[in-house]
Amino acid sequence: MRVLTALFLSLILMTSLPARADETAFKGRDVSYHDGETELQGYWVDARNLPERDHKPAPLVMIVHQWKGLGNYEKGRAGQLASLGYNAFAVDMYGKGIRPADDKAAGAEAGKYKNDPALARRRITAALDFARAQPGVDPQKIVVIGYCFGGAMALELARSGADVRGVVTFHGDLTTKDPVTKPGVVRAKIEVHHGADDPHVTQEAVANLITEMKTADADWTLTQYAHAVHAFTQKDAGNDPSKGVAYNAEADRKSWAALVMFLKDVLG
Amino acid sequence: MRVLTALFLSLILMTSLPARADETAFKGRDVSYHDGETELQGYWVDARNLPERDHKPAPLVMIVHQWKGLGNYEKGRAGQLASLGYNAFAVDMYGKGIRPADDKAAGAEAGKYKNDPALARRRITAALDFARAQPGVDPQKIVVIGYCFGGAMALELARSGADVRGVVTFHGDLTTKDPVTKPGVVRAKIEVHHGADDPHVTQEAVANLITEMKTADADWTLTQYAHAVHAFTQKDAGNDPSKGVAYNAEADRKSWAALVMFLKDVLG
Repeated sequence: MRVLTALFLSLILMTSLPARADETAFKGRDVSYHDGETELQGYWVDARNLPERDHKPAPLVMIVHQWKGLGNYEKGRAGQLASLGYNAFAVDMYGKGIRPADDKAAGAEAGKYKNDPALARRRITAALDFARAQPGVDPQKIVVIGYCFGGAMALELARSGADVRGVVTFHGDLTTKDPVTKPGVVRAKIEVHHGADDPHVTQEAVANLITEMKTADADWTLTQYAHAVHAFTQKDAGNDPSKGVAYNAEADRKSWAALVMFLKDVLG
Repeated sequence: MRVLTALFLSLILMTSLPARADETAFKGRDVSYHDGETELQGYWVDARNLPERDHKPAPLVMIVHQWKGLGNYEKGRAGQLASLGYNAFAVDMYGKGIRPADDKAAGAEAGKYKNDPALARRRITAALDFARAQPGVDPQKIVVIGYCFGGAMALELARSGADVRGVVTFHGDLTTKDPVTKPGVVRAKIEVHHGADDPHVTQEAVANLITEMKTADADWTLTQYAHAVHAFTQKDAGNDPSKGVAYNAEADRKSWAALVMFLKDVLG
């Protein structure tokens, strides 16, 4: 009887997690692109054909992954964004097949890019160049969003002076080894969503970013959410903020609503 | 001919500013209430009878004025909020007829309340008690918002432990002479909208508020808007941020949208 119950529960779990059981639920496809010799494997979801967008190019939202590399979380977000009428492209910073299995490996891999802003900027720019050239994409209407490590990468793109409409980070690392030191470089509007209790991205890092963005004379908005820590948008991060990594439903909901409004503002 | 043109332009100006020319446009009424012996004169606009709210009490939004006292700006906001289906009550902190005419007088009057948190809290609580008892008000569903000086007053109400659903400030003064020093006191959810370049409310004041709110274990959200300074929601504050006081259309629009979402969240 217990075995049957366990089997039954397993079935319920499997069917309640279609995103894991069946990636086709995201309605996207793997796409291959390159940064020099390095092959990268991203994930693309075409904008759903909303009536008013039929037969004309749609804006694009790029999504930069967390430290474990492009996975189902980013693919799910791509699906959500496509249903709002945007082409969605979950990029690959690491390279095809490089998907660190544990925290230690993830830290090492992410560190390569965190410690080398030039490499990080070249890699994310390769993704941007690839995406901008795709059919069905309005090349003038691009926003780049990122989570945790991906937030740092999205900010590196903004710091590089890339011509995109916006950059949005969620519990992103705000530090850089190559801060902007003068006005006129940053062209993207920047929105930062930060968990006020995030032990991995401190209030000092927030203050430094504000100082940097003021120096850059950038157009930015920064929202802090009480009780939220790292990974606050991720349901599988658990519910214990004392661990420094946890889901926070309110911060997730509010920051997503702010993103939707921002995309409407800058992409139409 | 020139005289006629000038007359014509004057007429256009007058008719395009109905809020100033004719206060009945706000569709509200003066209301008298008391804090002890002190008579106060607020302004009340009943919730517009949205279909789903017919025949049942509506939530209430209280609005606390800037340093020159209750005026057309706050009455206009009350009208906006009533049209969203909320009872709206623009309170009077100073007393009937006390409406400072210039900055110096306004600073002196506002200082009385800024320097005496007990007086400030008693005065704003008198407004809350009056409003809560009005027919047509759901006494459990109240949010208090404030601008500049009024933001400071709204925060004092939250610090007093008042049982309201939320407190929202726009370019509010964030400092207090009586900060919260322990958890469990603050019951209102707090939302702070701050101009990142506000010379009157510094980043140090922002950092102190964050520390205080963390100590209080309060539920809060704080958004900073680049290039915005004091009075960023006020069209008649001009457009020169170098003066430290200026309108900022983007910060006004975003913070108002956030307020509308917040009210829907906590008041329904």
